[in-house]
Amino acid sequence: MANKAHVSVYVASLACSTVLNLFFFINLYVGGDWKLSWSKKAAAEAEAVAAISCSGHGRAYLDGLVLNGKEPICECNSCYGGPDCSLFLPACPANADGGDPFFLEPFWMQHATSSALVVAGWHRMGYSYSDYSFISQELESHIRTLHSVVGNAVTAGRYIVFGAGSTQLLNAAVSALSPDNSSSPARVVALFPYYPVYKTQTELFQSKNYTFEGDASLWENSTGNATMNFIEFVTSPNNPDGQLRKAVLHGHPNAKAIYDRAYYWPHFSPIPTPADEDVMIFTISKFTGHAGARFGWAIIKDEAVYERMTTYMSLNTFGVSRDSQLRALKLLKVVLEDEAREIFEFGYKIMRDRWEKLSKTLSTSKRFSLQKLAPQFCSFSQKVKAPSPAYAWLKCEREEDRDCYSVLEAAGITGREGGLFGAEHRYVRLSLIRSQDDFDLLLHRLTKISGEEGAKPGQFNVINIS
Amino acid sequence: MANKAHVSVYVASLACSTVLNLFFFINLYVGGDWKLSWSKKAAAEAEAVAAISCSGHGRAYLDGLVLNGKEPICECNSCYGGPDCSLFLPACPANADGGDPFFLEPFWMQHATSSALVVAGWHRMGYSYSDYSFISQELESHIRTLHSVVGNAVTAGRYIVFGAGSTQLLNAAVSALSPDNSSSPARVVALFPYYPVYKTQTELFQSKNYTFEGDASLWENSTGNATMNFIEFVTSPNNPDGQLRKAVLHGHPNAKAIYDRAYYWPHFSPIPTPADEDVMIFTISKFTGHAGARFGWAIIKDEAVYERMTTYMSLNTFGVSRDSQLRALKLLKVVLEDEAREIFEFGYKIMRDRWEKLSKTLSTSKRFSLQKLAPQFCSFSQKVKAPSPAYAWLKCEREEDRDCYSVLEAAGITGREGGLFGAEHRYVRLSLIRSQDDFDLLLHRLTKISGEEGAKPGQFNVINIS
Repeated sequence: MANKAHVSVYVASLACSTVLNLFFFINLYVGGDWKLSWSKKAAAEAEAVAAISCSGHGRAYLDGLVLNGKEPICECNSCYGGPDCSLFLPACPANADGGDPFFLEPFWMQHATSSALVVAGWHRMGYSYSDYSFISQELESHIRTLHSVVGNAVTAGRYIVFGAGSTQLLNAAVSALSPDNSSSPARVVALFPYYPVYKTQTELFQSKNYTFEGDASLWENSTGNATMNFIEFVTSPNNPDGQLRKAVLHGHPNAKAIYDRAYYWPHFSPIPTPADEDVMIFTISKFTGHAGARFGWAIIKDEAVYERMTTYMSLNTFGVSRDSQLRALKLLKVVLEDEAREIFEFGYKIMRDRWEKLSKTLSTSKRFSLQKLAPQFCSFSQKVKAPSPAYAWLKCEREEDRDCYSVLEAAGITGREGGLFGAEHRYVRLSLIRSQDDFDLLLHRLTKISGEEGAKPGQFNVINIS
Repeated sequence: MANKAHVSVYVASLACSTVLNLFFFINLYVGGDWKLSWSKKAAAEAEAVAAISCSGHGRAYLDGLVLNGKEPICECNSCYGGPDCSLFLPACPANADGGDPFFLEPFWMQHATSSALVVAGWHRMGYSYSDYSFISQELESHIRTLHSVVGNAVTAGRYIVFGAGSTQLLNAAVSALSPDNSSSPARVVALFPYYPVYKTQTELFQSKNYTFEGDASLWENSTGNATMNFIEFVTSPNNPDGQLRKAVLHGHPNAKAIYDRAYYWPHFSPIPTPADEDVMIFTISKFTGHAGARFGWAIIKDEAVYERMTTYMSLNTFGVSRDSQLRALKLLKVVLEDEAREIFEFGYKIMRDRWEKLSKTLSTSKRFSLQKLAPQFCSFSQKVKAPSPAYAWLKCEREEDRDCYSVLEAAGITGREGGLFGAEHRYVRLSLIRSQDDFDLLLHRLTKISGEEGAKPGQFNVINIS
């Protein structure tokens, strides 16, 4: 109830502020007083770059390569080439590997006006904001509003720390939750299959205070041993399989959990209830789709943990780039214009359609299976929603297809090896959040391979598949 | 010679590209074909914010606090207040503490048109650039050109890694230079007085592979011991005292050096020769003055070190925000328009004038002394240059003034305690790179205190000094 009241107050204040802003802009525009001056050249330059035609299979960027002093080159979607990306490359493998969230790119192109950002040359040159912190108060308050509106996390009475994506915050949290100078370092664990960065990042720092110790399920029986400290990464929804998870070591007296909530958005998952864990990590990477901006945040219950994470952020990078923060603020303003209805409708529709098509394609296959996901009630949309995961967690079912990655590779599909996620090599993660071009090609090739189920291994030839 | 030839080729190609760009823009403007569309609203918004009057003692930012749905509030220079920053606060201490490089803010305001940046909502949503790296090739090539033009570092045949300011790169370098899983961790040292982040950051990570071991000069006699590994931070020019330094442990067989070149720019230092060390770290923070953008780079000779640093950057943050990189590129383009002449003339003039005024003020003082800096030939300006350091390293000379920070505090000046830099408490660092308001107030109060040298300690009263 309190939450709803908060939302209503916000909506009223948003409406009020929108009216005021409108008034402000009408003054600028209708009055015709405002003549653009210093921003005009940059605006024309950006529009000229945006207008470069890349045939709908790519786009040019302001900081793209400039050859011979000309305009930036087109950067094409996978399997498209040529100066204007009009050339389809039939021998090219379908890219279902990386987690680039290009499925949301059309949304932002459709919202070009509201999402454009003009940065003055002297914007935020100093180290800190006016409150001497490295955290934009405006952005923080927009994040709190966002969670109220979406209903995916409790923020009341919690602290917020910013990071360069969720990536930087993962280790900041591990570091903050570890005992300092303890003779028994914390054991960092995650239930398999798990996001591989937990291991590689934890090992990178070679800390005296924590070590990566693999699969959380192996430690369930150690919960009686009070001398052991655990830090469990819980990814919910899980990467790679989209399952909503709870901590495995929940009952252990010295186990702390870091909830990685990167995918807990209505695009990818029903939102049964606001997440309410001690340490929750979010990012815009999969929410607005701006992975390149490197902006994430942690919601923290305990003040001491918040302070340790803030120290970590200060000493690691002096906080998050003020340019990333400015960009994130602009994007959140656009999302909140209609209480996040449009972006999640847009994103959910794409993700659900992709999952439906994929499921249908493989429904009669005996060779490949997908993870099982059930429809579930979503409090954000106030209805039962069909599954819409970010990734397919594909299993090669045939006895001889032990190396599923190679099976797909031979069929012209690049996935991500299950072994990286701590799973058997029979599994491969297929990314469903890339561009429509990537998904279409993936589906085309999966349709072909599953239609050829009588064929023998090794019979697929990438050159012949297009 | 090869370097000069390189510069000439660059200048020719810059001229050529400028002509082409000019042609491009004349097409847009003079032809009158280009009508701004999607960027217009954002441009008007940014110009409206920039036009908010803060009385020359502050500025409003696009992401500043918005009260009652109105325009963002003015953020005032230290010791100014009121809604439009017109109110001088006489009881306020002069801020000579932080390293915010606001002395360059007027330069960017004067170059509003060329330094404005328009970011489309769909700019660089993915994780990587077109070459699958986290590093903008355009930006990298501008950095190489910059060093050729300024003559402050050798980049030919070297690798470049980007970081969030120099801050992130400091630990990336320590981590990359440390032995992996060695029974004898590397000893991280720096000659005192030194930049305190070397200690606090190195200790933050609690690594098995390295420990902070204090003053480099204490280890000079250990150079015979081949079982000891050293990593020496060498800040040149040094923070706090502006001296050009060389590694103290140069002769040690297992000593590696990280050269922190944050201040090796013609604003602050003569450039006798291009720096040519194995690991050199630069940042835009003190060069263009955009500390808030968090963008720096390391120039690396050894491929294995480069690869370890790249891995570090990937696992720590997935590289540097693409928004920071875009901003840095825009700023470098402006700097390179005239081969960096204007920005360094602008910056040097301010820094030299401030040092001259400060030196003159304290020239007859028996109570305070400054570090000694001599004029030196600068290859960039092709002349002998008077000193222009970023900081004054002030010493309280009186026997009883052991706590120099408190002496200054009582006189209405906030410096940074010498103890933080590993020096005696008789020293205080005074920042000379802040806004003109900050410097003027600092000078005013130093003039007053040094004019009152007969006064007894404790006699200065901040309330009476304005």
